Amino acid sequence: MSSTNFKIDNLQYCNWSKEIFQINREAQLDAIHVTIAYHEDFDEVKNNVKVWNKHFQDYKDLIFHGKTFKDIEKAHKEKKTAIFFGFQNCSPIEDDIGLVGEVHKMGVRFMQLTYNNQSLLATGCYEENDSGVTRMGKEVIKEMNRVGVIVDMSHSAEKSTLDAIKISSKPIAITHANPSFWFAAKRNKSNEVLKALADSGGMLGLSLYPHHLKDT
Amino acid sequence: MSSTNFKIDNLQYCNWSKEIFQINREAQLDAIHVTIAYHEDFDEVKNNVKVWNKHFQDYKDLIFHGKTFKDIEKAHKEKKTAIFFGFQNCSPIEDDIGLVGEVHKMGVRFMQLTYNNQSLLATGCYEENDSGVTRMGKEVIKEMNRVGVIVDMSHSAEKSTLDAIKISSKPIAITHANPSFWFAAKRNKSNEVLKALADSGGMLGLSLYPHHLKDT
Repeated sequence: MSSTNFKIDNLQYCNWSKEIFQINREAQLDAIHVTIAYHEDFDEVKNNVKVWNKHFQDYKDLIFHGKTFKDIEKAHKEKKTAIFFGFQNCSPIEDDIGLVGEVHKMGVRFMQLTYNNQSLLATGCYEENDSGVTRMGKEVIKEMNRVGVIVDMSHSAEKSTLDAIKISSKPIAITHANPSFWFAAKRNKSNEVLKALADSGGMLGLSLYPHHLKDT
Repeated sequence: MSSTNFKIDNLQYCNWSKEIFQINREAQLDAIHVTIAYHEDFDEVKNNVKVWNKHFQDYKDLIFHGKTFKDIEKAHKEKKTAIFFGFQNCSPIEDDIGLVGEVHKMGVRFMQLTYNNQSLLATGCYEENDSGVTRMGKEVIKEMNRVGVIVDMSHSAEKSTLDAIKISSKPIAITHANPSFWFAAKRNKSNEVLKALADSGGMLGLSLYPHHLKDT
């Protein structure tokens, strides 16, 4: 890549519309990681993808479906915004590791192993106890590494996040959370996690969600 | 209840047929807890129930669908076998607590919170770490208590099982496992669990599965 600076929104969800895509272009956003599933199962996600495919047709002068880093360079050059799909939960793969490859084919590039609660793969940050990445979680991380879906631990608990960093052969992402030393919300991240994340080449996107910010 | 002794198979699965129902009657079995789901989701379980409804029609001189303890007395009196439905996993309720009431309506009376792996509700006995009953698990146990589905912890890990005994307002079941002091398989149960189970009025059914038995 050249030394160009790219403007990327590391996680966003909203009531998407032409006006919003225009505002994003006025802000010269090159890429957005868009949440297309919170608690949806596989079939429900397929419907969400259909809605996005319609957006890509209707607003092709403003946005397109991003799938690799080259699409960020392309977006910058063409003055469009590349839309990257992500899940805030592993519910779309249900209990079937075979669906990891299927969601990748649908163009999904990020998947959180948990939302706030325990999932089949790992523990969410609102659980009382954190048993770390589960037996199925280990296998799913390997499969995500293999097909090219990035592990996102934004909502996961401490040990689960440290486990995922260790188990994943590729850098992981924490797309939306802040350092705990700055504000100690359950969703924010300890120094130990941030250090392990940085040492492994992972990335942190900051969060503007009110509960993750200081009151003052 | 009278002082009659009932013969109950606390857990069974097999390739069910008229011949098997006849063998069960020859053995004077009053009731069987039958596994109708291992990893099935809600719709798949509905199909398994249809197969059983056909059995109940075809072999009504041998079996019927049992739903309460009175059906065991009825079976004994009528020389039939009452078939009680159970799940060896919580997969049929997917991630929807509303499905607990639905599976009860389908006539299901037992549900394991886990098979061998971590579930959304608790930890299975083959996981490395056991975080106990999860946030969703606590709510699901309350709902099972409310509608009348018995919590079965046969395949669950130690802390999860102790948690379930504490959280459940009704006695729980361990339908198929042996004491660890006799043979220390992962699926067998510690003295602490057996003590807590007995103190809370729960029941233990022994297991004849080869891995749960001594080699000699």
